[in-house]
Amino acid sequence: MKGRSMSGDMPTSQDAIVAISALRRYGGRVHCLTNDVAQAFTANVLLACGAMPSMTSSPGEVSAFTVGAGALSINLGTLQAERMEAIRIAVSAASQQGVPFVLDPVKADISAPRLAFAHDIMGARPAILRVNAAEATALGVGQASELAPCVAETGQIDRIRTSEGTLIIENGTQLMDRVTAVGCAQGALMAALLIHAETPAQAALAAILWFAIAGESAADTAGGPGTFAANFIDRLYDLPLTTIEERAVIR
Amino acid sequence: MKGRSMSGDMPTSQDAIVAISALRRYGGRVHCLTNDVAQAFTANVLLACGAMPSMTSSPGEVSAFTVGAGALSINLGTLQAERMEAIRIAVSAASQQGVPFVLDPVKADISAPRLAFAHDIMGARPAILRVNAAEATALGVGQASELAPCVAETGQIDRIRTSEGTLIIENGTQLMDRVTAVGCAQGALMAALLIHAETPAQAALAAILWFAIAGESAADTAGGPGTFAANFIDRLYDLPLTTIEERAVIR
Amino acid sequence: MKGRSMSGDMPTSQDAIVAISALRRYGGRVHCLTNDVAQAFTANVLLACGAMPSMTSSPGEVSAFTVGAGALSINLGTLQAERMEAIRIAVSAASQQGVPFVLDPVKADISAPRLAFAHDIMGARPAILRVNAAEATALGVGQASELAPCVAETGQIDRIRTSEGTLIIENGTQLMDRVTAVGCAQGALMAALLIHAETPAQAALAAILWFAIAGESAADTAGGPGTFAANFIDRLYDLPLTTIEERAVIR
Repeated sequence: MKGRSMSGDMPTSQDAIVAISALRRYGGRVHCLTNDVAQAFTANVLLACGAMPSMTSSPGEVSAFTVGAGALSINLGTLQAERMEAIRIAVSAASQQGVPFVLDPVKADISAPRLAFAHDIMGARPAILRVNAAEATALGVGQASELAPCVAETGQIDRIRTSEGTLIIENGTQLMDRVTAVGCAQGALMAALLIHAETPAQAALAAILWFAIAGESAADTAGGPGTFAANFIDRLYDLPLTTIEERAVIR
Repeated sequence: MKGRSMSGDMPTSQDAIVAISALRRYGGRVHCLTNDVAQAFTANVLLACGAMPSMTSSPGEVSAFTVGAGALSINLGTLQAERMEAIRIAVSAASQQGVPFVLDPVKADISAPRLAFAHDIMGARPAILRVNAAEATALGVGQASELAPCVAETGQIDRIRTSEGTLIIENGTQLMDRVTAVGCAQGALMAALLIHAETPAQAALAAILWFAIAGESAADTAGGPGTFAANFIDRLYDLPLTTIEERAVIR
Repeated sequence: MKGRSMSGDMPTSQDAIVAISALRRYGGRVHCLTNDVAQAFTANVLLACGAMPSMTSSPGEVSAFTVGAGALSINLGTLQAERMEAIRIAVSAASQQGVPFVLDPVKADISAPRLAFAHDIMGARPAILRVNAAEATALGVGQASELAPCVAETGQIDRIRTSEGTLIIENGTQLMDRVTAVGCAQGALMAALLIHAETPAQAALAAILWFAIAGESAADTAGGPGTFAANFIDRLYDLPLTTIEERAVIR
């Protein structure tokens, strides 16, 4: 492996590749409590990447599904009462069993009850908090990572922040903004990579690079957002590790 | 713009193109309360067309999401109790704030409670009522538009009825009947176009022509309903306005 | 038609083709109570195969949708309380009206309440019980078919068991494991084929061969699991019956 980046112990693209390679080889099950809209696409992303999804959101069953999982992915879109209860149970089971989790507080900036719920769940300390700029502001996410060991702020430019420093990733394609659930699925992939990564930041970087460079490659042959979505799944499945190394733009 | 059609103030294909062009350029958020099956496809259609979807159906959050939206799309498929409550709240918030809405009473002809619920919601006067022939009969939709300013009756041939007259649109492809949620997504697109159209009939015509002609174009290169669905999203995204003008068959 | 196979009255590939041909020609509506993740893909599979899906899971409506359907498909993934209630009502309505049903107790081996619920539903005697090996063990499915006239156990190799004997089908492609909801949709297709088949085993064999050989054909031109999923729907739609006859590997 190459040396560490200048930002202290921040991961490098080489570290990301190690985690990606491990997920493809060894797999792992991620229990996903995600929104209605994102479920099928998220499951297909995980399957293409070598992970196994499970998606049950019944309060009576979610503990059994969480305890045996390698990681947990929590996404707060379409937050029905039953799903909220299931999320509380799953996060509690994960905390007790040492199952790491990713939190994506989708659109917590729009809805006050959702924002309050996000704060609640952050009390269980997600390994990765995945936000966009508006959500980060609403949640009061500062430079330091008092809320989570790793904050992944995604947008035109992606940022990974830990107590060790900040990485800026400049890959991706605008077509990704034209397909629903891409961001939600990325949170679930971060969870899958937590199973094999040494640090949350390594998992976050691996998911961001994998998505962004698969996206760039998929866009090359897409006729629009519909064929892009299919190509994107194909490239997640077969993207060469060397392409990630060659194309990664990290500052 | 060309002159109005012979049916008094009914919109023309030129009017439709103006609305399509405005949505592509200026966007707008549509809050969608739609059925489970249609959510992801509907979101992808809106994104391809330049609109921004939101989909929360939690009673505690739906008002906040509706108030800030440009339009509301209500679809009565898979009508769980929590979603029914959310629909009531959203329609009430929309009425108070002047947010226009589209109602699609999917399969209200099959289920008596759904038919009753559809009548209830029609009391808030949707800008567009989108129905097929069986639903129109069950709801007692007559020639006049006492139930809504614009009734869009879709099928092999599409009809738009207002107090000014009727338009008949003869575009489309049979492959659209082989992909789930195409009709549901069309209702959401009508809502998105309401943001920019001068009249509900203009929005309805724009959505019908956009769908039908993108569908014709997508079918040309499809190998079946699976690749058709991806191509259809691609063509919604990039269909030239001139193609709509050239291919529109309106009586 | 060819003669029966050596296993007494077990169906042959010719019998399967008769059922497939009838579904394509005459259609039929299947009411599906399936998991959140699988709904859209299941609907698209049924539409591609010539059937008509309905998917409502509201307890107040599901009876009306079941009574008029040709068959019922029950899948126990993502088992929310409201869906459980709807499943009980639908199965009861189906039993009273003689509507045949398929049961797929997804992951009943992981969750104790789901296993108990699966046993409950099996009391109404599904025409086909669709399981994988882990679910079969958890449910105590033996060689004999005391639980259902036909047990379809799917995996790398598919097995159909009835009191008459066992068929082993060796078609398919590994890419099918990389797309979510393929198995769930296959259960719904078995239900659709029950409408036209003489026996449950004939419907099960028809669905297994149709899926496996459409999958083989779709994989030939796929660039990965994303384009495979689209191609798979295309091939379900247009797979020649002669290709099924030529490629079927049944023991």
